Amino acid sequence: MAGAEVKPKVPRLLGAYQGLLGPALQEAIGGADEALLLPLRYHMGWVDPLGNPITAEHGKALRPTLCLFACEAVGAPPQRALPTAVALEGIHNFSLIHDDIQDGDRERRHRPTVWAVWGVNKALTAGNALRTLADLALLRLHWEGVPAEVALQAAHCLTSGYLEMIEGQVLDLSYERRMDITVQDYLHMVSKKTAALLGASLGLGALVGGAPREAVETLHRAGRLLGLGFQVQDDVLGIWGQPAQTGKAAGADILRRKKSFPIVYALQNAPAPLAERLRWCYQQEALGPAEVAQVLEVLDAVAARRHAQQTAEGFCREAVHLARPVLPVWAVADLEELAHFIVYRQQ
Amino acid sequence: MAGAEVKPKVPRLLGAYQGLLGPALQEAIGGADEALLLPLRYHMGWVDPLGNPITAEHGKALRPTLCLFACEAVGAPPQRALPTAVALEGIHNFSLIHDDIQDGDRERRHRPTVWAVWGVNKALTAGNALRTLADLALLRLHWEGVPAEVALQAAHCLTSGYLEMIEGQVLDLSYERRMDITVQDYLHMVSKKTAALLGASLGLGALVGGAPREAVETLHRAGRLLGLGFQVQDDVLGIWGQPAQTGKAAGADILRRKKSFPIVYALQNAPAPLAERLRWCYQQEALGPAEVAQVLEVLDAVAARRHAQQTAEGFCREAVHLARPVLPVWAVADLEELAHFIVYRQQ
Repeated sequence: MAGAEVKPKVPRLLGAYQGLLGPALQEAIGGADEALLLPLRYHMGWVDPLGNPITAEHGKALRPTLCLFACEAVGAPPQRALPTAVALEGIHNFSLIHDDIQDGDRERRHRPTVWAVWGVNKALTAGNALRTLADLALLRLHWEGVPAEVALQAAHCLTSGYLEMIEGQVLDLSYERRMDITVQDYLHMVSKKTAALLGASLGLGALVGGAPREAVETLHRAGRLLGLGFQVQDDVLGIWGQPAQTGKAAGADILRRKKSFPIVYALQNAPAPLAERLRWCYQQEALGPAEVAQVLEVLDAVAARRHAQQTAEGFCREAVHLARPVLPVWAVADLEELAHFIVYRQQ
Repeated sequence: MAGAEVKPKVPRLLGAYQGLLGPALQEAIGGADEALLLPLRYHMGWVDPLGNPITAEHGKALRPTLCLFACEAVGAPPQRALPTAVALEGIHNFSLIHDDIQDGDRERRHRPTVWAVWGVNKALTAGNALRTLADLALLRLHWEGVPAEVALQAAHCLTSGYLEMIEGQVLDLSYERRMDITVQDYLHMVSKKTAALLGASLGLGALVGGAPREAVETLHRAGRLLGLGFQVQDDVLGIWGQPAQTGKAAGADILRRKKSFPIVYALQNAPAPLAERLRWCYQQEALGPAEVAQVLEVLDAVAARRHAQQTAEGFCREAVHLARPVLPVWAVADLEELAHFIVYRQQ
């Protein structure tokens, strides 16, 4: 996990399954009603608002990638887990569409969000439709040869993961009004909001691939740890990321007074006068450049960025360590490369 | 199906399963996160916004009732279908919570809607959580002895029914801007928006109850017909219902320029000058009492109310006729009573 200064190359895994995943996602989303198909294909980055094909920046498809990887790593053909991979990407994107409504975000990945183009009502319905298509995709497992019992377990794993994600979102909202959040509170929230579905991604791949129960549980836990590392690094980018790369304004998470990892760390660890200044800034109705500068000063004073980076590294290292005994050598190497990318990515 | 003038008594079926259903719903919704539990219990009519128990007017629980009834009617204990019944009521109520956001409705069943009490963001999340709890409820089928294959079929039936419901909502929205909707267009939309989930209700009960495939399909179709009758009568109440009974303003559906059955019938069947007047009223930015009175006049002139009532009767009669050969005598009597209630209810 050395080399913090070197920009990591895109790991092999993030490209390995695109050929499988792309057509399967297209097919699943193609089941949507004509009127919802356009907003959904637009959200996925396949077309512009008029339906003309484009090559927009896609998401990283991290969840389906982890799922197909886990299936292959436990010795099954990755395509066996394709219905779960599609379902994971569908659920993730459904939640992004609804999140953008709730956060009032007009832009994602340098493009207007679905509600900004089609209005809140259509975006809400398009999101609900996408979730339904994801559920239907998962139910195809059995038709494609996975035993009915296993398909039911997979449905349960995905649905529980999503319920945890909602619980995490609710906690996150409740934290907005509180100034007494500890690093432990933060990690509890993130373990639900982000890590639950990433855990389910590795777990589902292993389950559908036919791994023994202990291996499924181990990979599920390893996925959760990767999820924690992923979110902490996301928080770093939300404050110090380059707008051109992240697609967010500089200091975006400070401007919206998010209780992200560096902030919570500083609230808990800064000397009283600095913590007080941070608290004061975060209690203003609206933050301007002056307050953002003050917040950044406090974060610098307690080396919050370095500490966050180390925390992210720690979670990802622990994930690989945990998964190592149940993975073949090639898979450990791929997982290490992916973990490195998660910690050192710039977007 | 005679006796249009007699207010029908509440059918036996609507009370028959409350003892089973109530605790199961409470248990399923009890799985929600603390912060979402209150809005959900409030929406279900169990507590006030502060969490104090109340005895509010409930919904009719028509979908779970049909489901448990079908299970019993095909010869299985009704509790076997309880997970599907809970899932149906959960999905239905999730969609009501989101509908109220989309329609901007501040009141339902004489009480403020969830978003009116807790805001749009929390209502959106509470709705999503309820849908997830519904999915989890359904997945319990297998743990409670239903074969995994059947449980997967049930999940597929419910999810497809819900996808049709979304498609119906999208059609309904698209009709708002159009003045050329025919009765056939309307019925196509309603067969998705309302009838799909009512069809699934009878179908799921029969499926889980172990009925042969043909009987499952027959009851599924019969449920759809009941759904069509239900919606047409709902449209009658949306125009001519008593506000004290329906919980909606007088002429509510006219005020919001809904293309409900009587309107679509009149657009298609009124003499040109009357149809023109109706079209003109429905193209105003906002309708006042004068326009509502004009619309009512046009509807009267073509006897739209009587025609709608007859149409609802026709669908419900057809439903009973279709289901009769696959039901025991007691069940036919109950279904007839329920169909009668659907057509002649005042709320």
